[in-house]
Amino acid sequence: MRAAIARDKRIVCDEVPDVAPDEGQVLVRTLACGICGSDLHALHHADVVGRLYRAVGVENALDPAKDVVFGHEFCAEILDHGPGTAKRLKPGTRVVSVPRVFDRTGGHTVGYSNRFPGGYAERMVLTEALLLEVPNGLPTHLAALTEPLAVGEHAVAMADLEGAGAALVVGCGPVGLAVIAALKARGFGPVVAADFAPGRRRTAERLGADVVIDPAAQSPHRAWEQFGLPRTRGQRYKAMAEGTLRGRPVIFECVGVPGVLQNLIAEAPVAAQILVVGVCMETDRIEPALAVAKELDFRFCYAYSPEEFERTLRNIAEGRIDAASLVSRRVGLSEVPAAFEALAKPGDEVKVLVEPTR
Amino acid sequence: MRAAIARDKRIVCDEVPDVAPDEGQVLVRTLACGICGSDLHALHHADVVGRLYRAVGVENALDPAKDVVFGHEFCAEILDHGPGTAKRLKPGTRVVSVPRVFDRTGGHTVGYSNRFPGGYAERMVLTEALLLEVPNGLPTHLAALTEPLAVGEHAVAMADLEGAGAALVVGCGPVGLAVIAALKARGFGPVVAADFAPGRRRTAERLGADVVIDPAAQSPHRAWEQFGLPRTRGQRYKAMAEGTLRGRPVIFECVGVPGVLQNLIAEAPVAAQILVVGVCMETDRIEPALAVAKELDFRFCYAYSPEEFERTLRNIAEGRIDAASLVSRRVGLSEVPAAFEALAKPGDEVKVLVEPTR
Repeated sequence: MRAAIARDKRIVCDEVPDVAPDEGQVLVRTLACGICGSDLHALHHADVVGRLYRAVGVENALDPAKDVVFGHEFCAEILDHGPGTAKRLKPGTRVVSVPRVFDRTGGHTVGYSNRFPGGYAERMVLTEALLLEVPNGLPTHLAALTEPLAVGEHAVAMADLEGAGAALVVGCGPVGLAVIAALKARGFGPVVAADFAPGRRRTAERLGADVVIDPAAQSPHRAWEQFGLPRTRGQRYKAMAEGTLRGRPVIFECVGVPGVLQNLIAEAPVAAQILVVGVCMETDRIEPALAVAKELDFRFCYAYSPEEFERTLRNIAEGRIDAASLVSRRVGLSEVPAAFEALAKPGDEVKVLVEPTR
Repeated sequence: MRAAIARDKRIVCDEVPDVAPDEGQVLVRTLACGICGSDLHALHHADVVGRLYRAVGVENALDPAKDVVFGHEFCAEILDHGPGTAKRLKPGTRVVSVPRVFDRTGGHTVGYSNRFPGGYAERMVLTEALLLEVPNGLPTHLAALTEPLAVGEHAVAMADLEGAGAALVVGCGPVGLAVIAALKARGFGPVVAADFAPGRRRTAERLGADVVIDPAAQSPHRAWEQFGLPRTRGQRYKAMAEGTLRGRPVIFECVGVPGVLQNLIAEAPVAAQILVVGVCMETDRIEPALAVAKELDFRFCYAYSPEEFERTLRNIAEGRIDAASLVSRRVGLSEVPAAFEALAKPGDEVKVLVEPTR
């Protein structure tokens, strides 16, 4: 079958061996699969990714020196059931799934496995027990956005929203937009969104951001005062003494490049909670003493739970998230190499969806 | 009056102008005052400290180029009341206080002020409204430990102890020991304590640490498995699937030198909550991607609230904390320069108390 393959730090289109469902697995046809920033990381920082996998003790870790078919943000159609399956869903049913597949050796991450091809291949095998049926009427390319939007759902679930006075989302790529969508889906506000790219700022607005800021024009941290949240310790003590202290500032870091954490340490208000959702692949430098003096809380967020994944699918299907606004374009397998190059550059593009049978 | 003065990055004993209580203030005689690691920081990294104060918007920030009398961990005796005071406590009453004093220009930190001398002087002025009477029978030198022990009380209050399965305290200097004392005062366990110095490990045991580890002999992170807490993501998934997942690992970082945070990122179990109580004054390097992959939570802790300060005084007075075990020695003003030099070296010393009228 055809696939876009990560090989020697490049994406190439080629044939890969077809797959067959084993015990508890189903064979699916990939209908749509989003390109994720993590795929770009994995292509360019393959050594780091391999080391990370080993460091956290992930079984069946990716060997980045070998071929891998990326793609973990997929919607697919059931073709066939393997042995020992319940056949709960009929062939032809459209499904999404957390990107995990199990065999006799344990779990594998679909899209970061040398053994199981991900969604940039025409077909995949998935674990039947993890499949979620796509609700009737939800377009395939929007169902494929469940996975990236679940990342936002999880980050928001990790935040102490009850005690929050306002939220700032730094960076409006797919991760930042997923956070905005999850915040607004549960009715939280005000949400301030910051990005250099005008198109991404427009998408942030469409998803419900209350204030949208171009960091080239003004610091996004000026918005705290607008919402009555103290920035300095003096202001905070005063507000506490006067009984006017509103909730805590909550910041979602959705950029993931060196320097962003230190910028937040320098610019964030005192007592801010910072959810680190962007993934910086390089060693970074911070000033811990200033983080102490401001009493900052950095929560590093990873992925989502199966429950958060399912909730996200419902949020999309029931219209609480305008998922369509995230889709920049839909491409065939042959266009994947060029799409990876385009996504590596700054710009307005958000989510490029690969349709392997296009 | 006599004082030990921080001047040109050295401690010198000299005369300083005497002080007189203004509106709302009382004049006190300093009975005992602990030497804090922050004083050593402030002496050697005066420029950093000054910048930090400005960065968090502290009013009346210290000018490290000018003379300052350190000392913010004090027990004192009321000598006289200034104008506009309620005279709630009689002269001769022993008191402790959060190290803040107010005048017409706002608040000042006692011990980090160019205007108000701290506890390494024979006399101070304090704000009457903040004074707490030392309970009858509590020795003066133990009451002086309220402030450093309150730092541990606050760090423990910042932790999600309800969801914690075990706590590791990295570093058993005054800060780490204060954390151990606060954990045990509220009956939390198991508590694992790690320090290279045998004397400090013995003090950790006296304060109730359940397991004490010499990091030169074995990694303190081996203790997690001993208490049934998973270290890798694979172990964690397995424990979740089997319903045997115990609480979260909680780590108190009480060392505060470059490299400790990255060591925790590399060695901590997945999903650990890390309370950063040690203050690293230099720029530090971390790998954010690994912190993301492990989903670590770094809470940087600063000081304490007035309520935590008061609770700590009660814990000491009512015997829930064996404060005496923290005291290494008691010295006069003339011995302060040598004590600073001794404390700057690694070793067993914990808390050196200055008795200015000794």
